[in-house]
Amino acid sequence: MKDHNGTVLLVDQEPVVIDKIAGWLSGAGYRVEVVKDSAVALDWWREHRPEVVICDVGVSGIGGLTLLSAITTEDKETQVIMLSSESDRESIVQALRLGAADFLLKPIDDYTVLEHAVSRGVADNRLMRQNRTYKEELEATNAKLKESFRLLKEDQEAGRTVQLKFLPPAKRQYDTLSIDYRIIPSLYLSGDFIDYFRISEHKIGFYLADVSGHGASSAFVTILLKTMANKIRRKMLTTLPELFSPAGMLTSANEELIPLSLGKHLAIFCGMIDMQKNELTYCSAAHFPPPLLVNGGKIQAIDGKGLPLGIFEGVTYADSTLPLSDDFSLILLSDGVLEVIPDKSVAEKETFLMEMASKGHHNIDQVMEFLSLAEVTEAPDDIAILIVSRNS
Amino acid sequence: MKDHNGTVLLVDQEPVVIDKIAGWLSGAGYRVEVVKDSAVALDWWREHRPEVVICDVGVSGIGGLTLLSAITTEDKETQVIMLSSESDRESIVQALRLGAADFLLKPIDDYTVLEHAVSRGVADNRLMRQNRTYKEELEATNAKLKESFRLLKEDQEAGRTVQLKFLPPAKRQYDTLSIDYRIIPSLYLSGDFIDYFRISEHKIGFYLADVSGHGASSAFVTILLKTMANKIRRKMLTTLPELFSPAGMLTSANEELIPLSLGKHLAIFCGMIDMQKNELTYCSAAHFPPPLLVNGGKIQAIDGKGLPLGIFEGVTYADSTLPLSDDFSLILLSDGVLEVIPDKSVAEKETFLMEMASKGHHNIDQVMEFLSLAEVTEAPDDIAILIVSRNS
Repeated sequence: MKDHNGTVLLVDQEPVVIDKIAGWLSGAGYRVEVVKDSAVALDWWREHRPEVVICDVGVSGIGGLTLLSAITTEDKETQVIMLSSESDRESIVQALRLGAADFLLKPIDDYTVLEHAVSRGVADNRLMRQNRTYKEELEATNAKLKESFRLLKEDQEAGRTVQLKFLPPAKRQYDTLSIDYRIIPSLYLSGDFIDYFRISEHKIGFYLADVSGHGASSAFVTILLKTMANKIRRKMLTTLPELFSPAGMLTSANEELIPLSLGKHLAIFCGMIDMQKNELTYCSAAHFPPPLLVNGGKIQAIDGKGLPLGIFEGVTYADSTLPLSDDFSLILLSDGVLEVIPDKSVAEKETFLMEMASKGHHNIDQVMEFLSLAEVTEAPDDIAILIVSRNS
Repeated sequence: MKDHNGTVLLVDQEPVVIDKIAGWLSGAGYRVEVVKDSAVALDWWREHRPEVVICDVGVSGIGGLTLLSAITTEDKETQVIMLSSESDRESIVQALRLGAADFLLKPIDDYTVLEHAVSRGVADNRLMRQNRTYKEELEATNAKLKESFRLLKEDQEAGRTVQLKFLPPAKRQYDTLSIDYRIIPSLYLSGDFIDYFRISEHKIGFYLADVSGHGASSAFVTILLKTMANKIRRKMLTTLPELFSPAGMLTSANEELIPLSLGKHLAIFCGMIDMQKNELTYCSAAHFPPPLLVNGGKIQAIDGKGLPLGIFEGVTYADSTLPLSDDFSLILLSDGVLEVIPDKSVAEKETFLMEMASKGHHNIDQVMEFLSLAEVTEAPDDIAILIVSRNS
C-alpha cells in the first residue's frame, strides 16, 4: 500500500464501467481493487480498509445501499462514493442519509469529476485517520504523563512526610512563652525551616531559615541545617549552656556549610529569649523581611545586617540584645510572604506588614488571615511564619 | 438557547414553506430562526452558530450554494440541509460536494423525514463539538500535566545535584588501594548511598547504605546518614583513630536514628581496611546481597547477620575480621541490583553474582557490563556498586 495516492475499492458489475473507472484511477496513481459482488466487497473492505469505496447502487449481492450502510456503521472514516444510473436517481437522498460521501450519475461523462471525488475522499479519510490517531496519541501521552507525574508527586509527598519529621511541634508553650509556626511549601518540599529548643531553665532558642531556591534541593539543605544546628547546639550546651549564642551558632553553621559548596546559601534569623532577664538576643544572617517586634505596645522592625550563610568564608556574626516587656510578640516571616502580597513595591509590602502588626494581628491565625494565606494554594516561594510571644 | 432541542436557521423565501417547516420544527421542540435573504443569513449564522441550517438552493441574496459553501468553509460543524424544487435536482451533487449534510426535495410530503434530518444534524453537530472540545481539553490537560511534570522533574534534578555533592569522588586511590563506585537512582533521588574516608595512615573506612524505599524521602535519610556518619567518625577520629570501628559506627548511627522515628530503616555494610595488617574489619546491618570478596583467587560471600538500622533500640553491632591477600576485590552491591537480573529466584541470583565474580568480573566496568547496567534506564529500585580492591 505504498507509492500510490490511495486505495479504491470499486464495486460494480458492468465491464465497461469497471474498465473505464479502474483505468482512469490507476492512471491517476490510485491502487484499484475491483469486486463485482457487494457481499464479497464487504469482506474485502473489512480486511483491507481502503480509503475510498466506489459502489454502484444496483450492484449484485447484498446491494449497494446495504453495503454502504454496513461500511458507514462500522467505520466513519471510509469515504463511499455511490454510482447510479439516471433511473436510480431516487436513491440519492437515501444514500446521503446512509452517509455516502458523494454521488455520481452514470454514464460518467467527465472522469476528472470522478477523480476529484476520489481525491477528496482520500484526503478526508486521511484527515479523519490523522485526527483519530492524534486523539489517541494525546490520550496515550496524557495517561503516561499522568503516571509519571503521579510517581514524582508521590515521591515528593513521601519526602515531605520525612521532612515534616525534622520539624518541631507546630505549637509549644515554655512557661509563659508561646511558640507557634506555620510553613507553606511552594512545592511539596520546603526550603524554609524552623526550629526551637530549650537552652537552659530560663532560655529558649529558635531560628527561621530560608534556603535559596525551593523544593527538593533546598529541602536537603534544611535537613543538613537541622543536624548541623543540633550538633552545634548540643556541643555548646554540653560544654556550658551559658556559651550558647545565636551569633556563635551562625558562625559555626557557616563554617560547616562553606566546604560543602552546595551552590545554596541561606538566610537565617536566630534568636534566644532569656525569660529571667526579659531580653531577646538575636543574630540575623540576611533574614528578610525584618522581623516585627510588638513590645509593650510599640512596634519595631528588627533590621539585621549579617551576610547569608554558605557563601563567605570566615564571616563572624555578632549578637544584638533588646529588652522585652511582659507582653510581646516577635513575628518572623520568610521572604516568600512578600510574593503573595499583591501589587506593591517591596517598601510598600514592608509597610503593609507593619500595618498588620499595628492593627493587632499578632498570632498565627490572625497573620494567616490578614495575608489571606489560607487561600494560597500555589505559593511562588515557600512561606514560613514563626511567632514567639508572651501575654501575661 | 436553552430548553430546546437545538437551533435551526431556515433560509427560504416561500411563505408557505416557511410556515410549514418553522411550525413543524417548533412543534418538535426546536428553536427556529427564519431569514429570507442568504447574505443576511450568513451574518446571522456567523453571530449565532446554530446547529443546523436549512437552506433553499434558489434563495435570494448570494444564493443557497454560495451560502452553503461559505458556511462549510468556515465551520465543518454546522450541518446544512439543502432544499430544492424538482427542477433544481441537478444541484444535488454540487451541494454534496460543497459539504451539505442532507438534501430534501420540495414539496416536502413527509415532515417526519425533515425532522429526522434536523435531528441527525443536531446530533452530528453536537458530537463534532464534543469531539473538538474533548480534543481541546486533552491538549490543555496535556500542556498542564507537562508543565507540572517539568516543574517536579526540574525540582528532583536540582535535588539530585545537591545530593551528588554529598557523595565522594567516584574513583579514588589510597596508596595501593582502589575505590570505585557507581549509583544508579531509580528516580532522580537515591536512597542508596556510599562514602569512604581515610581513618589513619594505614586505615581506610567505607560504607554502602540502602535506605528503605527510594526517591526523595529515602534521599533525605542519606543526607542525614552522611552528616551523622561524619560526626560519629570525626568524634572517633579526634579522640583516638584506633577507636574507629565499623560496628561502633553502626551502633551510634542506630542510636541517633531511632529517636527520629522517620519510618525509614536502612541496610548498611561498613568496612575498614588496614593496609598494614592486611585485613578487612567489617560489620553488616542487614546488607543484602552478601558482599563478594575475591581474595587471592578464592571467592567468598560475606554473610552478615546484623539487624537493619533505625528500627530496634539498643542493638549492639559486632565487627568481624578477615585476612586479605595482596590481590583482592571486595564487591558490594545494593539489593536493587537483584531486580535487574531477570527470571531467577533470589538464590539463583546470588549464584549468578558468584559466577560473575568467578568469571573475573572484578572492576566497575566489568560488573556494569555483566549485569547490563548501562542499558538500565528505569531501575525499579536504586542500584549501588562499590568496589574496593588492590592489585599488586
